[in-house]
Amino acid sequence: MIDRYLAQFPGNYLFAEVARRAEAMRLGRPGVRLVHMGVGDVTLPLPEAAAEAMARAAREMAGEGGFHGYGPEGGYDFLRRAVAGDYARRGIQVDPEEVFVSDGAKSDCMGLPAMLKRGARPAVFDPVYPAYLGGAALAGRAGEYSAETGRWSRVVYLPCVPENGFSPSAKGCRADYIYLCSPNNPTGTALSAQALKMWVDWANRGRRLILFDGAYCDYLTSGAPWSIYEIEGARTCAVELRSFSKGGGFTGVRCAYAVIPAELERDGCFLGELWRRRQAISFNGVSYVTQRGAEALFTPEGRAQAESRVAFYLRNAGRLREGLEEMGLEAYGGQDSPYVWARAPEGMGSWEWFDLLLERAGVICTPGVGFGPAGEGFFRLTGFASAADTQEALERLAAIC
Amino acid sequence: MIDRYLAQFPGNYLFAEVARRAEAMRLGRPGVRLVHMGVGDVTLPLPEAAAEAMARAAREMAGEGGFHGYGPEGGYDFLRRAVAGDYARRGIQVDPEEVFVSDGAKSDCMGLPAMLKRGARPAVFDPVYPAYLGGAALAGRAGEYSAETGRWSRVVYLPCVPENGFSPSAKGCRADYIYLCSPNNPTGTALSAQALKMWVDWANRGRRLILFDGAYCDYLTSGAPWSIYEIEGARTCAVELRSFSKGGGFTGVRCAYAVIPAELERDGCFLGELWRRRQAISFNGVSYVTQRGAEALFTPEGRAQAESRVAFYLRNAGRLREGLEEMGLEAYGGQDSPYVWARAPEGMGSWEWFDLLLERAGVICTPGVGFGPAGEGFFRLTGFASAADTQEALERLAAIC
Repeated sequence: MIDRYLAQFPGNYLFAEVARRAEAMRLGRPGVRLVHMGVGDVTLPLPEAAAEAMARAAREMAGEGGFHGYGPEGGYDFLRRAVAGDYARRGIQVDPEEVFVSDGAKSDCMGLPAMLKRGARPAVFDPVYPAYLGGAALAGRAGEYSAETGRWSRVVYLPCVPENGFSPSAKGCRADYIYLCSPNNPTGTALSAQALKMWVDWANRGRRLILFDGAYCDYLTSGAPWSIYEIEGARTCAVELRSFSKGGGFTGVRCAYAVIPAELERDGCFLGELWRRRQAISFNGVSYVTQRGAEALFTPEGRAQAESRVAFYLRNAGRLREGLEEMGLEAYGGQDSPYVWARAPEGMGSWEWFDLLLERAGVICTPGVGFGPAGEGFFRLTGFASAADTQEALERLAAIC
Repeated sequence: MIDRYLAQFPGNYLFAEVARRAEAMRLGRPGVRLVHMGVGDVTLPLPEAAAEAMARAAREMAGEGGFHGYGPEGGYDFLRRAVAGDYARRGIQVDPEEVFVSDGAKSDCMGLPAMLKRGARPAVFDPVYPAYLGGAALAGRAGEYSAETGRWSRVVYLPCVPENGFSPSAKGCRADYIYLCSPNNPTGTALSAQALKMWVDWANRGRRLILFDGAYCDYLTSGAPWSIYEIEGARTCAVELRSFSKGGGFTGVRCAYAVIPAELERDGCFLGELWRRRQAISFNGVSYVTQRGAEALFTPEGRAQAESRVAFYLRNAGRLREGLEEMGLEAYGGQDSPYVWARAPEGMGSWEWFDLLLERAGVICTPGVGFGPAGEGFFRLTGFASAADTQEALERLAAIC
């Protein structure tokens, strides 16, 4: 009676295993203070502008004439217009009607490909944000999982490694749709306009689809494209996923959006129309209170508050990257992203290095292999810890490297 | 490339068509004030206790040490404990670990059956809340839709009509799982303990599943069971879906929960474990702010504020039911539910009566056939309008009946 894909799903081995080993260390050596550098969540207080807007909206709901019941499934006009305005500031035309507000990019990552026929074949970069594969697996289009290779049988994996500048080629990629994440989680690197143009051409040529995950777009500082729609042709092949989580500190508030261009069509169906229909069946929209909070992130105060937080995380990440390089380690990211991706010293495997780092330095990282087989031999550190812990982690690392 | 079930989905014809005809009337006869009695959404202000708790939580998030990032997918302990406490007050044992918080019962209605194999066959009462069928249809297990019969080929429809006391028999029901909604939307009637026991036995005998939708449980006044877990044997076959929408005025805030008993198992898999795994893949939990608001509905003030609103809607519904009966119409519901379900006079069809009511009285109802073929000849009124509009609608109805 149970769906076999769900029953066989390998589970979130990575973070559970990290937590298990950290806990064993904590119990075994109670005197050692562990420094968590694997944090994948923002840590600074919510921007005041958003908090104030939410408090106001909550009170408004309890007053005469201020109640809001079921909202539009795709989001309130005020938020859709604010998002469209944000694109317009950058010279990109997005109509408010093309913006679909949701409770999180994870929901969109999972729901959007569910509009495609079951046989549609996904491609992902390797290493990769695990939710892409989870969604495909649950929809039955990832095929079978092999614990030995760490791969799903029907997924096309494109190694995203230093050897190809973390920018795999589209040539010969036999998939129906691809998740592109730029800036990338976990490697911290961003795709160039040239690379994105290659993927847009690949998609348009074969009437394929791109799901462009820009969850970390607010961290870009190197000049890499902020939106896939900066690339010519993207409107006929790409959906853009955005979230207020990492840029606006909304991981605990839950608000995101997808942009589906009006002209994006496959098999005679407009994807925006299909998505509207699907959301009407399965979703009742995002809290009015939350949407007022998200709207406030587009005000001058909200923008400044969010930007100062992003700058803080980027400073941490930049220090980590520099520090690792000073120790002679090969390190990437940290410039366009809160993530730093580095190669473990002396050809060590990801878990071997994780254990050594934990054991000898009391520092917790995230083993790269947990994001996919091509992540073997790498580890991820993040800029989300405090400045003091970031400094402390670097000192402890230097002592053992 | 597009999923054929989604591409063929008939869309929400019902409410769109109601709106279209109402708009035509408004334009054609601008002097007539239309009275909306088809409202399916709560209308009174949000309970102050919930609004205050949300405003506090939003401010807390912006303060030092008060930030909450990603929360537990299944909900914060404080809310799960409050829900379990609410069951305990009624003498029903539910462990906080068995409570799974979500952003809405619609999401749960759709997501929970997605844990079952694709061939699992659904049963529904007819007429029925459309989201049950939409979810099954998108998952590909409803089969093909026939516009002629208004039915999906693989769904078992159980007529829920006055002739069987709105309580169809489980005998011979060849389905793998059933949605039971009590108090029922749209008929406004509640299932008795005896009827529920019949369904629980049916499910346990065949290792089938019950999805018990108790979204309107706060409206019960007749003594019908408040929870499926009041029925012996329910913990081995039933998931209970609850929402803060209609009882707590949360339609615009978005919070609901599912209870999955620890012992509920099929094919050697515990459903609670599977759901936890699925939610971890596809969901990042409900806003901390929202959950603090929901928690406040369980405080004495929150309870009293929510109950006074429910009582108001029930008074309206009771008046509608009585008024219709005084006009000699056959009417049901309104005692355990904000919905009143009545038979159109003189054997008229649902839409025929809708048009006549709109044309001659300027009153908008919901045609019963829109909820399923067995709703033909019926119409639904709701207690969510203002007391004045409710009175006005009755007077206008009396003038034409």
